[in-house]
Amino acid sequence: MTRHIVLTSHPRTRGDTAPLALHWGAPDARLRGPILAGPVNRGIRNVIGAHSGSYAVYRALAVASGALAADHKPDFTDTDPATAIRAHTHWSDPNKIVSLDPWGHLVTEVFSGQIAEGLDVRPTIAITRAHINMGELRDAMARGRLKPDGRVLLANGDIRVTKIAVDPVWYLPGVAARFGVNERALRRHIFEQTGGMFPELVTRPDLNVFLPPIGGTTVYVFGDPQSLGQSDTAVACRVHDECNGSDVFGSDICTCRPYLAHGIEVCIDMAQRGGVGLIVYNRKEGRALGEVTKFLVYNARKRQPGGDRAQTYFERTECVAGVQDMRLQELMPDVLHWLGVTRIDRWASMSHMKYNALVSQGIAVGERVPIPDELVPADARVEIDAKKAAGYFSADPPDTNRLAEAHGRPLET
Amino acid sequence: MTRHIVLTSHPRTRGDTAPLALHWGAPDARLRGPILAGPVNRGIRNVIGAHSGSYAVYRALAVASGALAADHKPDFTDTDPATAIRAHTHWSDPNKIVSLDPWGHLVTEVFSGQIAEGLDVRPTIAITRAHINMGELRDAMARGRLKPDGRVLLANGDIRVTKIAVDPVWYLPGVAARFGVNERALRRHIFEQTGGMFPELVTRPDLNVFLPPIGGTTVYVFGDPQSLGQSDTAVACRVHDECNGSDVFGSDICTCRPYLAHGIEVCIDMAQRGGVGLIVYNRKEGRALGEVTKFLVYNARKRQPGGDRAQTYFERTECVAGVQDMRLQELMPDVLHWLGVTRIDRWASMSHMKYNALVSQGIAVGERVPIPDELVPADARVEIDAKKAAGYFSADPPDTNRLAEAHGRPLET
Repeated sequence: MTRHIVLTSHPRTRGDTAPLALHWGAPDARLRGPILAGPVNRGIRNVIGAHSGSYAVYRALAVASGALAADHKPDFTDTDPATAIRAHTHWSDPNKIVSLDPWGHLVTEVFSGQIAEGLDVRPTIAITRAHINMGELRDAMARGRLKPDGRVLLANGDIRVTKIAVDPVWYLPGVAARFGVNERALRRHIFEQTGGMFPELVTRPDLNVFLPPIGGTTVYVFGDPQSLGQSDTAVACRVHDECNGSDVFGSDICTCRPYLAHGIEVCIDMAQRGGVGLIVYNRKEGRALGEVTKFLVYNARKRQPGGDRAQTYFERTECVAGVQDMRLQELMPDVLHWLGVTRIDRWASMSHMKYNALVSQGIAVGERVPIPDELVPADARVEIDAKKAAGYFSADPPDTNRLAEAHGRPLET
Repeated sequence: MTRHIVLTSHPRTRGDTAPLALHWGAPDARLRGPILAGPVNRGIRNVIGAHSGSYAVYRALAVASGALAADHKPDFTDTDPATAIRAHTHWSDPNKIVSLDPWGHLVTEVFSGQIAEGLDVRPTIAITRAHINMGELRDAMARGRLKPDGRVLLANGDIRVTKIAVDPVWYLPGVAARFGVNERALRRHIFEQTGGMFPELVTRPDLNVFLPPIGGTTVYVFGDPQSLGQSDTAVACRVHDECNGSDVFGSDICTCRPYLAHGIEVCIDMAQRGGVGLIVYNRKEGRALGEVTKFLVYNARKRQPGGDRAQTYFERTECVAGVQDMRLQELMPDVLHWLGVTRIDRWASMSHMKYNALVSQGIAVGERVPIPDELVPADARVEIDAKKAAGYFSADPPDTNRLAEAHGRPLET
């Protein structure tokens, strides 16, 4: 480690190489240009940030501890997508896709020349196949709601899926436009609220693509992914925001895992009828506030005078976090644009925020499918009532008296 | 937004306020000093990074879009820990705890004076109570392996737990020492591998505490947390590294969720016998390589000539990622030091890396509990065989012939 440390926030001086040009929204990948993020690409790096989101910090530990060479370049033999997701018109519309690289799964194909020349171009999207199996769905089979067909759902409860992992790639002018804010203000707020992460956000307006170190998205596709983007393909979808306590451990304070399992049931049913089901899983723990804040809010809800009740559900979050919700669904439709989805026939969500985000991005929504009442855990009544009162889609919004009653379990029980 | 942008990497000039001193490893919180990360604290901020890890990026979007005031300060009414975790001797040992703030859950108490003066001091740890419920454990009840006792495990399968969310707080000299590397080299590698995140890592050696934007840890405590740290308390533990595909969706390519559920069963049993069970859940998706890399590796494993087999299991990861594993367990024992755990009587893990990390940090491990063979999904045989061959704890390591056979399902099925 003898070479000079290059602070990327320094203005370039004469004689420096220039970042390789990126033209977001260009008609094809070659005209758009490859995302060059790795340290190997140094002079011609053309984005702010690094690959693999926050796992870059672990990569640094691996390099520091001697386990990994600082200039390691991946060998991508046999890693290509398990199914082809091919270009839709939205891929070259700089307003439709602003938060992922539409060619992110195809880089070894479309940028093979640059890779052969020694550039470090990495996929930001990976596509594989899997079998998944969940107790709730085996239960749905036992109750006769789902029937194995040997294609989507096997007799042992295995469900055949295509899985797509997507790392975020933000085109900053497009992200700013989506939120209706000035790009310069957006950059400055990211810089300031993160404690000064990436000064290039404020010093390098010429770099307008950012790989934020935030969790990405996983898409589970039920049925044939190749039929996405065809106008006669019926689509079912749930967009699910991560909730580790419920999704993994089955915590009963919210409806997250029950609604996820129900969404998968809706997706399997759609795939069995010849359509496609999509679960979009976004890493936005605790309404993108993180789990520490979430647990602080749980304590405040359960200890407040009058007990845990729907009327004050959002207020308790706002006291701690300053907002009711930080998930900000504005960028969420991008992955659906990428898949060529223009209409969702069955939409397994009650959130008006997600619904509005889809509709404002031109994705039509047919039937809205609420979570069946019998799937709501007892302690989650406060949440579901509060959400219905706040505008979530429901056939039976709760009355005012109910909202004022304490329904949640006290903290000590 | 008219005020001057302060690049935190700038050297301080005369007349600037100084960061509030932090003395890591001081005997009490007041002598140690509060972590000041928020922009509100500007001149006297004393760490690199921001609160809530990578969710700071969402906070920035909320501010940019006008939903949140840039200078919002939380109201922490009723958010205090649901159970007291009180100081153990390790809390003031700068070598024992280097990756979390031992007073992180008590800030509103121990730094009440600073908060009253207007400083923005935030918890980095939150403690609540919950009921969890998982199909695998209801199944263990139905099979008679678990019996409800009305205290830890209720008749409907609900399990009463204390949940602790922990955000990382790194004391950089201590983290460097844990990995046996020079602090300056560590800082430089983090800076370079993240694409220049936080130039202060290289320009501000006076700031030696870092809030990295990586996922944190959740601890699920079964039984009475108050009895932790007492020498006669028997402890069962599983340290589980996140695997979204298995933990949430039950993907059958690995043993993650089955081993997690088994670990919880071991914890419930220990709590019912008067001890304490601990599940430590670390956000290290795909061996801390992230899910995109994980899916690329899955494709390479299943497509390689000769099929998916134990013999080449680690090799396929190394081709893509440059390492077999990036979880780097060196910092993992800290949360157990924080809880006062000096001995784990039943350790639900086969990983030699986790085991070695505990032992090298002075935590004794009694019985090592492998995953029962009947819980291993069919497609996960490749993984478990490869791990046993690589040194994972097992009574029956696989023979060489078995390692060379293809056991994994091909990609297309």
